[in-house]
Amino acid sequence: MERPTPLSGFPEWLPQQRIVEQQVIAKLQRTFELHGFASVQTRAVEPMAHLLAKGETSKEVYVLRRLQAEEGDNTDSGLGLHFDLTVPFARYVLENSGKLQFPFRRYQIQPCWRGERPQEGRYREFWQADIDIIDKDTLPGHYEVELPLVIADALRGLPIPAIRMHVNNRKVSQGFFRGLGIADPMEAIRIVDKIDKIGPAGVGKLLAEQLDATDAQVKACLSMAEISSPDESFVDAVRALGVTDELLDEGLAELAAVVSTAAAEAPGLVTADLRIARGLDYYTGTVYETTLDGFERLGSVCSGGRYDTLASDGKNTFPGVGLSIGVSRILGALFGNGLVSATRETPTAVLVALPEEERRRDCDRLARVLRTRDIATEVAPAAQKYGKQIRFAQRRGIPYVLFPEGESGGPEIRDIRSGEQTPVDMDSWTPPVADLRPEIRAGE
Amino acid sequence: MERPTPLSGFPEWLPQQRIVEQQVIAKLQRTFELHGFASVQTRAVEPMAHLLAKGETSKEVYVLRRLQAEEGDNTDSGLGLHFDLTVPFARYVLENSGKLQFPFRRYQIQPCWRGERPQEGRYREFWQADIDIIDKDTLPGHYEVELPLVIADALRGLPIPAIRMHVNNRKVSQGFFRGLGIADPMEAIRIVDKIDKIGPAGVGKLLAEQLDATDAQVKACLSMAEISSPDESFVDAVRALGVTDELLDEGLAELAAVVSTAAAEAPGLVTADLRIARGLDYYTGTVYETTLDGFERLGSVCSGGRYDTLASDGKNTFPGVGLSIGVSRILGALFGNGLVSATRETPTAVLVALPEEERRRDCDRLARVLRTRDIATEVAPAAQKYGKQIRFAQRRGIPYVLFPEGESGGPEIRDIRSGEQTPVDMDSWTPPVADLRPEIRAGE
Repeated sequence: MERPTPLSGFPEWLPQQRIVEQQVIAKLQRTFELHGFASVQTRAVEPMAHLLAKGETSKEVYVLRRLQAEEGDNTDSGLGLHFDLTVPFARYVLENSGKLQFPFRRYQIQPCWRGERPQEGRYREFWQADIDIIDKDTLPGHYEVELPLVIADALRGLPIPAIRMHVNNRKVSQGFFRGLGIADPMEAIRIVDKIDKIGPAGVGKLLAEQLDATDAQVKACLSMAEISSPDESFVDAVRALGVTDELLDEGLAELAAVVSTAAAEAPGLVTADLRIARGLDYYTGTVYETTLDGFERLGSVCSGGRYDTLASDGKNTFPGVGLSIGVSRILGALFGNGLVSATRETPTAVLVALPEEERRRDCDRLARVLRTRDIATEVAPAAQKYGKQIRFAQRRGIPYVLFPEGESGGPEIRDIRSGEQTPVDMDSWTPPVADLRPEIRAGE
Repeated sequence: MERPTPLSGFPEWLPQQRIVEQQVIAKLQRTFELHGFASVQTRAVEPMAHLLAKGETSKEVYVLRRLQAEEGDNTDSGLGLHFDLTVPFARYVLENSGKLQFPFRRYQIQPCWRGERPQEGRYREFWQADIDIIDKDTLPGHYEVELPLVIADALRGLPIPAIRMHVNNRKVSQGFFRGLGIADPMEAIRIVDKIDKIGPAGVGKLLAEQLDATDAQVKACLSMAEISSPDESFVDAVRALGVTDELLDEGLAELAAVVSTAAAEAPGLVTADLRIARGLDYYTGTVYETTLDGFERLGSVCSGGRYDTLASDGKNTFPGVGLSIGVSRILGALFGNGLVSATRETPTAVLVALPEEERRRDCDRLARVLRTRDIATEVAPAAQKYGKQIRFAQRRGIPYVLFPEGESGGPEIRDIRSGEQTPVDMDSWTPPVADLRPEIRAGE
């Protein structure tokens, strides 16, 4: 075949970048588990009917077809790749509800696919790391406060810029528009959601054209969308606009609880931002978006919200709340700007040098001894001159070369950075912790 | 939506089974890294032209189409889901050859998709765990010996039945058929590969019908296919059939090296089995298949081989050798037969009991203290009676409940298995290692 070229929108990482990704994912995983979330993985495909019922991304779905499917064979017709992890998880909960304990805390780290036009931060295949809590019949509001704190905990300590979470509540927007007398509050939410793209004037025009909003109504909607505060003061700002509605009251109380708890437990993390809407139709309460300091242009790197009716089979309803970290979006930006890398491109800590090909089995045994002490070790590919074997280690950042027989007659270990070579006790030697595994660090 | 039902061929695990899968994959990963393999992940899709060039599974490929692709928009036409991890990896190596160090040792654990008829051990979506070593221009034969030993190391200690690896070499089959005067040796390999399905008589019939093989040739082919030995004695058995061919000699020497080294380093692991062929066209040297004791009916649970020309762009060639563990096939069989499970269905080791909803923030802080010592902790969902909170922990197998204020006035910890409850020092208490995380065990 010809030398292949990358596919736009389907990023792949080099081994050193993959080590960063692995360690980031391991940190997320470990934190989620420390908070009691169990891992779930769902199949990559869902029935199209299920995918198409769930909001605006449905138009970007990839549909599957078996290459050799015979005429009339519909076994796999109507399957598409999932575009997020929330819709499959809601289906998994419904399907297995008799075998799960509720409230059910799960995390899920998998790729998703959307046939969108690729651009910075937007891929056609991308990894998401989701946490959700789903309960039966009712879901206590305290989970809407808990999830942002878990996310902050998960990202803490990673070489990633600070995050800011922008939070709103669908009930606030919907109640406000309803109290204001707007004909179609859900459509108003979708229009206001475009404010970052088309600006306040554009939003005002759409509200007037599509929903017959009066000048006063447009003005109130735009004032509401401008409200933002890191504390509960947004409540007074909304009240000052003079709209009253029961759902609005409910939403304001819920949003105030999220913002005030977050302000106490993780100062600077959460801002009430009444312009936030989220495109997906299934949200019914708190909605979250997250920006990465210095990378606001990427859009949200961690989004989600509360969904009360997504997982329902008519008889039973499982309301949930979830947040989803855009792993590929974050890593793509960090790699693209040279902001994070790994100390080497291989797990190998020690290369066993090979004096001659006939000694390979002996060298394998030395390697095995080190592996029993959790030291990643490989034997040199060929019995080249030692200088060449040392350069092979250097090129890949392997910190140590073990010589089976040094000048001392026994095995010697060489630190390839200092060039220092010393006799080594095979039954006790171990490298410093910082050399044991590749580590991730800021910068290139 | 209606209550959903499982999709045949797309297995999903319950949380407790997923914990088993996670720990099995973690063991594979850790072992591969100890042997110096770096992780790579490739996108799920490949150009169809690339997938279709690579042998018999191509007919089972899933093709993608964007739901809303407009007439004449061919951006994603011609993409299909990969059916294995070898073909994508060969493409990755060609694409990135200037940025990789050779020989390149990589592992890759991802799902693959094939539109096959689902049956026991055969899924339409399944996880594979692959190791490969790819070099530039030439690849030393010692890697064909090394890989089976790495696999044995990776599966050791897991609650999985013993494996037996059946090894052959394409050069042996091809050289033997050629030396015998068979017109199309590659076609003869494909026919003999069917011996398990259609029996020796069926194979003989096909050889005669399709390749005009004489009775003597058929007899020699079937005698060759019956040869099997755990040591080098297979060489004499082949010689006794009286066929001479240069390629056959080369293959016998290579296969003898694999079998004799494995016999010395891992007795019982490898058998030379001259009936093994592998369906895929890209193998050129050693080929491997692996059976699981007691589950021979599943077919191979770890297959692979040497491929000399798969990764080639005309100018440069990157020969490789690889082995692929069928993770879903093995786990599906173990789960289906109740042979392995986890000690609980959640990572949570401690549930903090909640005396009243107003105390939630205090309880969160207690949980945080435990998490700093790596103890997975969650706070009770609601301030129910303590009996109910204890039962909530019991149902999910959480071993400990922490009460913020016991009779002693301070926090107390209760082991829910013994019912014993004792005052606890929040700054030092930690559960026994066996309770810290769910563990996997044989049986249900």
